[in-house]
Amino acid sequence: MKATEEFAIGLDIGGTKVLAALVSENGEVVSEIQCDTKGGGENFSHQMIFAIESLLEKENIEMNSIKGIGIATAGVINSKKKEILFASNLNLGNFPVGKVLERKFGLPVQLYNDANAAAVGEWLWGNGKGKHNLIYITVSTGIGAGIISNDSLLTGSHDSAGEFGHISINLNGPLCPCGNKGCLENYASGTAIAAIARERLETGEVNPYFSATIDKLTAVDICTAAKMGDSFSIGLLEEVGEYLGLGIINLIHLFNTEAVILGGGVMNESELILPSIRSTVHKHGIQSMVEQVKIEKASLGRYACVVGATGLFFCKVDELAALPN
Amino acid sequence: MKATEEFAIGLDIGGTKVLAALVSENGEVVSEIQCDTKGGGENFSHQMIFAIESLLEKENIEMNSIKGIGIATAGVINSKKKEILFASNLNLGNFPVGKVLERKFGLPVQLYNDANAAAVGEWLWGNGKGKHNLIYITVSTGIGAGIISNDSLLTGSHDSAGEFGHISINLNGPLCPCGNKGCLENYASGTAIAAIARERLETGEVNPYFSATIDKLTAVDICTAAKMGDSFSIGLLEEVGEYLGLGIINLIHLFNTEAVILGGGVMNESELILPSIRSTVHKHGIQSMVEQVKIEKASLGRYACVVGATGLFFCKVDELAALPN
Repeated sequence: MKATEEFAIGLDIGGTKVLAALVSENGEVVSEIQCDTKGGGENFSHQMIFAIESLLEKENIEMNSIKGIGIATAGVINSKKKEILFASNLNLGNFPVGKVLERKFGLPVQLYNDANAAAVGEWLWGNGKGKHNLIYITVSTGIGAGIISNDSLLTGSHDSAGEFGHISINLNGPLCPCGNKGCLENYASGTAIAAIARERLETGEVNPYFSATIDKLTAVDICTAAKMGDSFSIGLLEEVGEYLGLGIINLIHLFNTEAVILGGGVMNESELILPSIRSTVHKHGIQSMVEQVKIEKASLGRYACVVGATGLFFCKVDELAALPN
Repeated sequence: MKATEEFAIGLDIGGTKVLAALVSENGEVVSEIQCDTKGGGENFSHQMIFAIESLLEKENIEMNSIKGIGIATAGVINSKKKEILFASNLNLGNFPVGKVLERKFGLPVQLYNDANAAAVGEWLWGNGKGKHNLIYITVSTGIGAGIISNDSLLTGSHDSAGEFGHISINLNGPLCPCGNKGCLENYASGTAIAAIARERLETGEVNPYFSATIDKLTAVDICTAAKMGDSFSIGLLEEVGEYLGLGIINLIHLFNTEAVILGGGVMNESELILPSIRSTVHKHGIQSMVEQVKIEKASLGRYACVVGATGLFFCKVDELAALPN
């Protein structure tokens, strides 16, 4: 390992696990540790500290080559105060994760929601590299987005920007638990894919492509069946691609972005959905705005958040701004 | 006039007229001149130069107290190159307005589209003052938006961000000339208000509130009739408010903004539409995101663009960033 090399620590705090990684200045994961998150507050602090210390010891890295600790979490956060305000699965409330880790390690800490961290990762080192404007979309249980605009992460006034799953694409659509009507999440999330399939198929119906019974179908089952040639599942996923495409057109028309990068569990089977997304966007978007937008699968996979959370420690905004348009 | 005071020149280039104004560092219009735009290219340059020179002479202002020339236009622009790429009414194509005026006056020039200029105006000196995040919406013949996010104007990759009129709010809606389905502009612009009214009323029907015949109704007629108590027009404008409200929820969920400021011709009668916009946003938006959003009529009226176009000559971004959140 070069003595002059610089690193940062990335933490991806999920509902049940923390992934901790030592990330190089090129956005590469040099080393990683995964541990379960058990209990909240105190316990949780110890687990994070233990994970970081283990990483540092394992790689024999000196503290002065670590630029900082970047954290990504699905919880509700205050990024300025570096607090996790609420994370139901972790039993955490108003947890000052920044203060705890800054005090322990004497390093700067940055806190992101997970879609924002992944957006930074894809922007600096993934499929959005070289772009000044991009939108990362995660299609998983729910749908969210992280937005880079003119070389800056768009957070909004309270770190809640990018609620892409809760834009309405149908004013006559069903009421969403969020209060809105016809939210995209009810048409195109993993949860929605399973729900639509269950609704359209008859309980008890025998389909040789499904290992699960109709009432227990998941989005993974639909994707698996589609890959095996099930026309119902293929058609449903194409339809989901159209819904996502219509939502993405709204994003392109509002943000005039250069790239849309799609990640999340549902996008593991991107070949089943991406063609339909692309054709919808090109059919219905304003041509001058959509024709140059790159629409791709995310490239950093499970490392997107952990790598992205460290990104701004290495990022030289001046260099980014100097890239040609 | 104080010797130490600083000024900028604002130009609002419309389809048939140019409004030129001398704007003080407090965003006040000290003096204005309006002239018709006749012919393109050369002629157009002469008209703008004449308007600026007339203003300077009239107010006896020295050049060294002018910080720059800010231009707002409805045309398609390249703000970095300071070129008007296309403005159909002006017969202009690839017109280097920045170069022409910089060369003539030796002053820096900034170029904006009109919604963006108005957004800057309302942000610095209008109803969005003190906010770090706001969205200005113009509801006129068409619908557009200018977006301020984290104290920066969001332009997108090619100055086309904010095409709010062309986000879809109805995946089953009618095809818009832009190619998209169910665009907001087809539900809530001035053009749409008139079209919906004409469609719902029978040609030849006599309505004592309308001075025009049904086939010639305009949005202004509908607003006038509503103010006189016509229940059809009142109901239609409430419905328009609901459509705008649904679109605005999408903006709030994506941008996590603090304020939505509405201008444009249709909003001259804001009391007929704003209550329905507000109630829709509060009924269907994510509560934690919408409850603190101020939704107001624009306050700068016809000066919004001309004042906004000069704004960033006076704006000290450091001071803005230091405002409390």
